[in-house]
Amino acid sequence: MLLRWVIGQCLRRARRDQGKTLREVAEAAGVSVGHLSEVERGRKEPSSEVLAAVCQALGLDLVDLLRAAQWELTNWRLPHLSLPGSAFALAA
Amino acid sequence: MLLRWVIGQCLRRARRDQGKTLREVAEAAGVSVGHLSEVERGRKEPSSEVLAAVCQALGLDLVDLLRAAQWELTNWRLPHLSLPGSAFALAA
Repeated sequence: MLLRWVIGQCLRRARRDQGKTLREVAEAAGVSVGHLSEVERGRKEPSSEVLAAVCQALGLDLVDLLRAAQWELTNWRLPHLSLPGSAFALAA
Repeated sequence: MLLRWVIGQCLRRARRDQGKTLREVAEAAGVSVGHLSEVERGRKEPSSEVLAAVCQALGLDLVDLLRAAQWELTNWRLPHLSLPGSAFALAA
């Protein structure tokens, strides 16, 4: 499990929980929609500065993000590793 | 506070707690000593792959790292933000 996957999942979950679009968060954070989308999917490594801007756009601080990442990792670990297809389908 | 600063501090603390040198951990992780040193000082952004390799070299998993990062951040926050010079001097 790579950190950018976990962080991407946290950011996507936080954005969806707030009912925000990729565009809204990307604009508030000053990044492109494409870049944010790649970050959320764990495909691009966000710089710490981009991460801070996205967190700010979501009203999260770094402790919130780390706590969410621990949660994602703990709750993901077994289903993700053993049944990746169904785990992602359930999470989508 | 940027994530790479917090992660760098965690990695340095873990390495020192284990009595390991930069060279030992860098060699075990397959990265250069210079790069690891920059990562530990929060000056370079480690890729998630490098981070995973360094964690493995230190016997940490990602949950350990996130937990340590939360600890660093919680215990750093006030002194770091109000008195950065002395906080770093004390931590050094």
